[in-house]
Amino acid sequence: MVYIDRNGLTDFCRQVFRTIGLSEIEADDSAKILVDADARGIASHGVSRLQRYVYGIQEGVMVSGVKPTVLRETPISYVLDGNGAMGLSLSRTTMDTVISKAKEHGVCFSSVRNSNHFGIAGFYAEMAARHDMIGIGMTNTAAMGVPTFARDPYFGTNPIAVAVPASNGRIFCLDMATTVVTRGKIEIHAREGKDIPSGWAVDTTGHGTNDPVRLIEDMLYLRGGGLMPLGGEGEMLSGYKGYGLATVVDIMTALLSGGPFGRDVMDSENTSARVCHFFGAIQLDLFRDPEAFKADMGRMLDELNALRPAEGCERVYYAGQKEHEAEERSWKCGVPVTEKLYDELCGIGLQILGRKLERLQ
Amino acid sequence: MVYIDRNGLTDFCRQVFRTIGLSEIEADDSAKILVDADARGIASHGVSRLQRYVYGIQEGVMVSGVKPTVLRETPISYVLDGNGAMGLSLSRTTMDTVISKAKEHGVCFSSVRNSNHFGIAGFYAEMAARHDMIGIGMTNTAAMGVPTFARDPYFGTNPIAVAVPASNGRIFCLDMATTVVTRGKIEIHAREGKDIPSGWAVDTTGHGTNDPVRLIEDMLYLRGGGLMPLGGEGEMLSGYKGYGLATVVDIMTALLSGGPFGRDVMDSENTSARVCHFFGAIQLDLFRDPEAFKADMGRMLDELNALRPAEGCERVYYAGQKEHEAEERSWKCGVPVTEKLYDELCGIGLQILGRKLERLQ
Repeated sequence: MVYIDRNGLTDFCRQVFRTIGLSEIEADDSAKILVDADARGIASHGVSRLQRYVYGIQEGVMVSGVKPTVLRETPISYVLDGNGAMGLSLSRTTMDTVISKAKEHGVCFSSVRNSNHFGIAGFYAEMAARHDMIGIGMTNTAAMGVPTFARDPYFGTNPIAVAVPASNGRIFCLDMATTVVTRGKIEIHAREGKDIPSGWAVDTTGHGTNDPVRLIEDMLYLRGGGLMPLGGEGEMLSGYKGYGLATVVDIMTALLSGGPFGRDVMDSENTSARVCHFFGAIQLDLFRDPEAFKADMGRMLDELNALRPAEGCERVYYAGQKEHEAEERSWKCGVPVTEKLYDELCGIGLQILGRKLERLQ
Repeated sequence: MVYIDRNGLTDFCRQVFRTIGLSEIEADDSAKILVDADARGIASHGVSRLQRYVYGIQEGVMVSGVKPTVLRETPISYVLDGNGAMGLSLSRTTMDTVISKAKEHGVCFSSVRNSNHFGIAGFYAEMAARHDMIGIGMTNTAAMGVPTFARDPYFGTNPIAVAVPASNGRIFCLDMATTVVTRGKIEIHAREGKDIPSGWAVDTTGHGTNDPVRLIEDMLYLRGGGLMPLGGEGEMLSGYKGYGLATVVDIMTALLSGGPFGRDVMDSENTSARVCHFFGAIQLDLFRDPEAFKADMGRMLDELNALRPAEGCERVYYAGQKEHEAEERSWKCGVPVTEKLYDELCGIGLQILGRKLERLQ
């Protein structure tokens, strides 16, 4: 691992984005949200995607400076067509609007169509949690998850994030794909020549596979096979629950905004991702004194941390705790990236900024 | 299986409830919602619980005629203390209020503490779906689910239901426990002397067990062990996601209402279940023309049904479809109950009404 100063990494990404044509706000949002993912240890959604963003912007697939079209708006709802805008910045500004409407009217929900990748769903959910609200973030993604009893993919990894504030500035943040794993984990196993564990994916027959190389090829050529929904294959371990949750995400993101859903979500290098998002903010104060709520919430998190660990396990975490601890460390010790990614970032830097990325000692 | 005329079974339950002291509305709601579960094929939450309700009412654990206390109310929120009321009827009337507030103001959410069992969460979610709304129902339950990396139970089976209307009167209805399975499935295996499948439960070490008898005993004496969260043990198949969802249910039901959460949810034969519920209704019209939405929703359900089934599988269902088909059948062919349950119901009938329950030929 190479460690990079967090502010330095953010500045680097910001300058790359500025140089290839993003506005100051777009560049700032995009840099911050990508680096935030790495800082939390969610490397799959961080600066490893910088090259893809650079390519998307240079090819005009992600469009700088476009304004979203407001399709419908009420005091508590906000429906947008993103018109292929930068997903990260569009999502941050949309969540700002959702929060300010929720401050005034108690709740607000937004459904956004035709956007691009927005990074980690939890980032947006946590924005609301810092205002004494329950925050929600979701997105649909290109189809690679296979519904229960089927053999072809229909849904994306369709993540759901829910963030809730607790005492002492803590935030509970569940940020989960509704498939068992994301595609990235399959690719890592393929590169390393390892079998994937049973319970991750099905092949073209619709039944479990351990062969990541064949799976990736079958998915590429649309022969069938793909990721299992949370809960796995069939009904034995309740895979229909993950399948149902993935459906809910498509409903909230795409059906409510009139955007592409299911297999129509196309994510190629030549078109905008055309993904759809959903954002929500719900004031605690609608239900209860927020301070009393956060005190109880803190007690719950403490109780979870105090549970007896399973044999051979060190600690019981609550959702988001590992990520927040990693983020704390990143301010002191830098953001970890692999040697390979570091070289790739330096390549982007040399090409676009005429300089490498500085690493910590 | 014994088949019983659906109206006849509902009347039977209603008369039992009336005779032991429930009001007309309470008896009507309770009978309808219990029979609805059996009609859908969710026998665990249906009339098999009649004896428990009878006992609860006769012992004063479930209280007839109590009014809930309104703890906080705004145009879009409604927070109640159920004061140990009949959970089924309290939940139905609360959802009615939620729907009528949502009709006027776009959305409404309700959190209810100190209630009793409310049957199937999907029943309430579907009430809203029949009004062109997205409906939500949740409840916490007595702790029997073990968080990731822990060895003691902390959460209940904590179900989440989401119902969404589609074209041709169809309703998508996801109604799922956030544990892999519910306790009932463990008990059936114990009674039949069968091992439980790997991936359902952990023992007192916090690791997988196949022994349902030992598990039930360990849970009874609070030695540790319990149900795995959706996604199973540890992180390999993403059990932290089911754990996170269970936490969200406790937050929405108990933390928002100031009720008991985690291990404080006590469900004995001598106290009210003290469970907490959450209900929500969100108008489609806030986002989009409801007819256009339902047409797209119908297209999605059709596409899911048209997916190529996995080898050896007959059909791909959407969430709720199996249950709705079973319900259709129940009107024509009666509600199925086991011979054993039929005898038990006749016993209750003889004791309370002086008559047996009629069965179809």
